[in-house]
Amino acid sequence: MPHISLPNLPGIRGPMAFRPETSKPLNELVEVLLRHPNSLSRGERELIATYVSSQNNCHYCQSIHGAIAAAHLDGNEALVQCVKDDFRSAEITPKLKALLGIAGKVQQDGKKVTEADVQAAREQGATDLEIHDTVLIAAAFCMYNRYVDGLATVQPKDPDLYRQRGKMVAREGYVAANLTNVAPPSQVAELVGS
Amino acid sequence: MPHISLPNLPGIRGPMAFRPETSKPLNELVEVLLRHPNSLSRGERELIATYVSSQNNCHYCQSIHGAIAAAHLDGNEALVQCVKDDFRSAEITPKLKALLGIAGKVQQDGKKVTEADVQAAREQGATDLEIHDTVLIAAAFCMYNRYVDGLATVQPKDPDLYRQRGKMVAREGYVAANLTNVAPPSQVAELVGS
Repeated sequence: MPHISLPNLPGIRGPMAFRPETSKPLNELVEVLLRHPNSLSRGERELIATYVSSQNNCHYCQSIHGAIAAAHLDGNEALVQCVKDDFRSAEITPKLKALLGIAGKVQQDGKKVTEADVQAAREQGATDLEIHDTVLIAAAFCMYNRYVDGLATVQPKDPDLYRQRGKMVAREGYVAANLTNVAPPSQVAELVGS
Repeated sequence: MPHISLPNLPGIRGPMAFRPETSKPLNELVEVLLRHPNSLSRGERELIATYVSSQNNCHYCQSIHGAIAAAHLDGNEALVQCVKDDFRSAEITPKLKALLGIAGKVQQDGKKVTEADVQAAREQGATDLEIHDTVLIAAAFCMYNRYVDGLATVQPKDPDLYRQRGKMVAREGYVAANLTNVAPPSQVAELVGS
C-alpha cells in the first residue's frame, strides 16, 4: 500500500496523477531523453533506463522500460533480460556496452565515472552528446526509481500488464500515454487491470 | 576537467548550457519543487535539497543549494551547516526533522522508507503533499548530484561564488537565473569567477 493516498494507478503513474505540476517536467524529461531524435536508437536508450532500474532493483521501472525496450527491439525480451543479467555478454554494440559501463558507475555514484570509462566509449565511437545523455538517463532513473519505491507505489507482478502498456508507450510516447493518468475512476480501474 | 567538452560554467550550468532540450524540464522541475507556493517554506525545501546533496557528497550542489537555503533563512549559514552535519540537533521544526529522515532514506534507496518513518512525519503534522514533495526532492537530487559528478563538471571551491549566486537564485528563481547560462563567452568568464 502506498505511503500516501494516491490515485489507483500502477508505479509512477500514481504519484504523477497525484501531482500534475511535477509530472509535467518529469514526463518531458523522459520524452526528450528516450524518444527525441538521437544517434542512439530508442531501443538502446530504453535498455540503458532498464539496466539502471534493474541495478536499483526497482520492479516497476525495470519492468515497464524493459517492455518498452522490447517493443522497440522487435519484441526481443531475451535481449532485455540478458542486458539486465550481464550486458557484457549481450548481443549489443560495443559502443552500447561501453555506455552501459558508464551508466552503471553513475547509478552507484557519479564520481565513479573515470576518464578511462569515457575514453573506452569514445574508442567505440561514442559522441559527447551520447555520453552526456547516457549520464543523464542513468541519473534520471536514479530519481524515477527512488520516487516509485520511496512512496511504496503499487507495482503489479503480471508481465502482460507491462507488455501491453510498453507497446502503447513505445507507439505514442510518454507525454501522450500519460494523458490517460487523468482518466476518471471507472476508466482508471480498467487501465490498471485490477 | 569535464569528461566532455562543456561551456565554461560551474557545476550543472555547464551541461545545462550544453543541452538546452533537457535543461528546460530539469529547471522546471526544481522550480516547482523548491520555489512554487507550498506549505513547506523555500528555506525548508532548500535544506532538504542541501542535505541530500551533502549525503551524496556532491560539492557543487550542496554548496549552491546551501547558499540558496541560507539566503532564504536570513543568511543563517550556521543552520545550514548544522543540518548537513546532524539535522537532529539543528534548530528546525520537528516536522522538518521527520521529513529529512525520510529524505535520507530515499537518498540511500526508496525501499528503505518505512510506514513508521511516514507515520512519524504525520504525527508532526506533515501532509501527503509534503511527504510526496520530500520524496521527490530527495529523488531529484540523487539525479542532479549524479549528473553534476558523472560528467566531472567544474566545481569551484570559493564559498563567495556560491553565496553571490545563491542570493541571485533565491531572488529570481531557477528558470530566470539560468537564462544567464546562454551568456556570451566574455560574460561567462566573469560569471564563473575564473
